Amino acid sequence: MSRISFLNGYFINHDQAMIHIEDRGMQFADGIYEVILFHNNRLIDNQWHLERLFRSLNEISIQLPYSHEQITTACLDLFKQNILVNGSVYLQITRGNATRNQLIPKGITPTVIMTVSSVKHFTENELDAGISAITMEDIRWQRCDIKSIGLLASSLCKQKAADLGYAEAIFVRKDKITECTFSNLFIVDSIDNLITKPLDNFILSGITRRRVIELAKQLNIKIIEEEIDTTQLLAAKEVFSTSTTLLIRPITSVNGQLIGNGKCGKITWQLIHAYQNFLNILED
Amino acid sequence: MSRISFLNGYFINHDQAMIHIEDRGMQFADGIYEVILFHNNRLIDNQWHLERLFRSLNEISIQLPYSHEQITTACLDLFKQNILVNGSVYLQITRGNATRNQLIPKGITPTVIMTVSSVKHFTENELDAGISAITMEDIRWQRCDIKSIGLLASSLCKQKAADLGYAEAIFVRKDKITECTFSNLFIVDSIDNLITKPLDNFILSGITRRRVIELAKQLNIKIIEEEIDTTQLLAAKEVFSTSTTLLIRPITSVNGQLIGNGKCGKITWQLIHAYQNFLNILED
Repeated sequence: MSRISFLNGYFINHDQAMIHIEDRGMQFADGIYEVILFHNNRLIDNQWHLERLFRSLNEISIQLPYSHEQITTACLDLFKQNILVNGSVYLQITRGNATRNQLIPKGITPTVIMTVSSVKHFTENELDAGISAITMEDIRWQRCDIKSIGLLASSLCKQKAADLGYAEAIFVRKDKITECTFSNLFIVDSIDNLITKPLDNFILSGITRRRVIELAKQLNIKIIEEEIDTTQLLAAKEVFSTSTTLLIRPITSVNGQLIGNGKCGKITWQLIHAYQNFLNILED
Repeated sequence: MSRISFLNGYFINHDQAMIHIEDRGMQFADGIYEVILFHNNRLIDNQWHLERLFRSLNEISIQLPYSHEQITTACLDLFKQNILVNGSVYLQITRGNATRNQLIPKGITPTVIMTVSSVKHFTENELDAGISAITMEDIRWQRCDIKSIGLLASSLCKQKAADLGYAEAIFVRKDKITECTFSNLFIVDSIDNLITKPLDNFILSGITRRRVIELAKQLNIKIIEEEIDTTQLLAAKEVFSTSTTLLIRPITSVNGQLIGNGKCGKITWQLIHAYQNFLNILED
């Protein structure tokens, strides 16, 4: 069966999903994206994702002529057409197609794209081993709260980490940790406080970040939103990243130094199990 | 006659120049561009543009399977097919089309796009009046030396300036002037020194900037490459921007305050005439 994608209101063969070379997404990174997890035929935290999508669009003044319901229906249809009950949907909205102009043209129709994919599931052993990370200067723009498609810095830094033998890069701006290349970061300190950077213009307001904070509260884990410096990061008992498709990813070494005993820590496991439970509660 | 554009080796009807939705230019701003001026059937400072193009590509590890000569030939053919003897060519190279991956895929074929346009010429009166500008925080990434297609910050800031009634935004990072949204910046101080920020990772190495420095030397204008702060900018006798298509653009007010007497200054006129002369010398 051919893969089906959504483009501007139509469900079409993925290979034939084409846009014009003067789409402003292509020429100016003038667009926004979202990735939503689909688990057992349900979109996970869909409402939060859609709220963030419309906030990002609003920040760059793109008016999307779709309601939350229309987007949701299209996503669900797309999974159905691709015969997927689990996976993720990638949703991209650009300002649309216009003769190249440094100024933002008025009255053009946004380009709306949706593609679906399967997601990787990790074994208990893979989760326990965790991944390695390296700290790297955060060279991105100063509006990382906008989920824009201008992802070159993130992609280059993730690749640089990989080339150096690390699975992930942790961004540092003025000695404070911001987030990872495509995920938020949490640490557990020596007295089991769960700490993550407060939301501001330097990080994305992650949906999994938000869900993990909710789950931590339910588990009576003390959650603190404050700045984290490199010293605190390296001294942490546990470190993990959160993102929509990789969920909670234990980071068990940073800059070649083990975090805790180099295995996924106790609080991280609690949260992984709580998240799995959260997904299962949603099942029919 | 239909407009013709170049896409991956083919000259095609511009309206039918389509790329796939998973082009990494579209999904990650994973690409580079150049704009080259075409005057009386010649590409202006073509060699410098091509050197910069290949430098940018190299910085993000895109291997372009075209020589300088092949690009030049394609550009010239494109102007011919569009029956243009003056104008500009927009050249965009992305990493190519691949299933979405945060890491950089190996072995994919770059997407190569060229489009041509006419350019705006300014009257002596327009040049004398100059344009207004407003200073704005430079929120872009920290690799502005790479001419990437990740232009959302520049486009948003240029539009913000326009919405406030200014023609241009001048970026300021830590109280130092970097450049304008799509152009470099020069000032003339009280003793007729021509000053511009030295090249580093915070500004693009402009081709017109480079040419203007050459012309200034020939005119025995003292050229100083050093950091400029906001106070110096506002106290300048003359201010102008340089870019490939708008050439030398006098800025005659900043933040609502007149620069000099609010008209294009003496040194700026000298350089405008020298640049016009430089273009004419190239004529057949």
